[in-house]
Amino acid sequence: MYTLYTTLGSGNCYKVQLLMHQLQVPFRMVQIDVLKGETRSPEYLRINPNGKVPFLVLPDGRTLGESNAMLLHLAEGSDLMPQDPFERMRVFEWLFWEQSSHEPYISPARFWIAIMPEGRVEKAEQIATWHERGNAALQIMEKHLSRHDYLVGDRYSVADIGLYGYTCVAQDGEFDMSAYPAVSAWLERVKQSADYREMMDLATAA
Amino acid sequence: MYTLYTTLGSGNCYKVQLLMHQLQVPFRMVQIDVLKGETRSPEYLRINPNGKVPFLVLPDGRTLGESNAMLLHLAEGSDLMPQDPFERMRVFEWLFWEQSSHEPYISPARFWIAIMPEGRVEKAEQIATWHERGNAALQIMEKHLSRHDYLVGDRYSVADIGLYGYTCVAQDGEFDMSAYPAVSAWLERVKQSADYREMMDLATAA
Repeated sequence: MYTLYTTLGSGNCYKVQLLMHQLQVPFRMVQIDVLKGETRSPEYLRINPNGKVPFLVLPDGRTLGESNAMLLHLAEGSDLMPQDPFERMRVFEWLFWEQSSHEPYISPARFWIAIMPEGRVEKAEQIATWHERGNAALQIMEKHLSRHDYLVGDRYSVADIGLYGYTCVAQDGEFDMSAYPAVSAWLERVKQSADYREMMDLATAA
Repeated sequence: MYTLYTTLGSGNCYKVQLLMHQLQVPFRMVQIDVLKGETRSPEYLRINPNGKVPFLVLPDGRTLGESNAMLLHLAEGSDLMPQDPFERMRVFEWLFWEQSSHEPYISPARFWIAIMPEGRVEKAEQIATWHERGNAALQIMEKHLSRHDYLVGDRYSVADIGLYGYTCVAQDGEFDMSAYPAVSAWLERVKQSADYREMMDLATAA
């Protein structure tokens, strides 16, 4: 069985949980409390020397970091990973774009507003930058999703899961989602996918 | 023929140029001067609304952003992309890790030290952070490369190209490469790969 080291409320962890749940891949979860410094504990660093979550242990003991690498590895061969080379290219593009231009802004804005609000005043300047760049990312999604139901190939895929992880909590980072009607409609569409589960449902399962 | 929109001295652009050169894929380059604001010109934004480089136009007119998505798309089916699922998993892991934990620190440190040194004093605090995190990334590479000649499957692959792009210029960002003998030996090994070209050789070719 797979073991996923995970932390409550992390969009990067949620992506992997949602994919495994939707693929009906059995896995157990081990909760690591990032806020308590558990990713830096000697015990966890023996498991994952990079000290990050999510972290996946495969049934044969091999280990894997990087949430989007997990998505590509786990989805391969399933209906959630296209076979067409140009659709695959788009999956790669969205997943790298998520890590370079979306998650680095939406995730910390949400963290310092919704999870660690005591740091909000000190982070005000950075939050303004994250809002500006996160909104630029949401505008790119809005433009695409105003013409397509899904991110790649007009059907639900691992690219949608990759982008859903933090887009579904952007409102908690005070991104005004009413400005993004096509993104909002897509969020609802993802919720209708087979075996969909909310972040907090999966966080406490397994 | 492929067209690559590129900018002089960018490691993200160089990766794609090096791969295409080594795969003997014919391409032409269009130089975009980021420092002169050309990625934000109306003309360029009509080509790439995201305003970034590198940007690839495929022979059939389709376009592709994200350097590492280009690497995965172009390398597929060649000797530089493994076929084994677990080796592919490692390629994905290194390429996502490069964008999340390596390039975001090594690239800006090098930029503000070697390319825009007039901003160095103002950026001193950030440069210290980039050095700390960039060195952490180089230590992870050092640990792996002290036991392996290459990043994946003990042979040269697209993962090496992905990491080479900014590791080869880390010294210009005042990362002390003498602290990383295995990484330094790997840099030399990459230079021995078939049809290798230096960054500046490819920047002026086309």
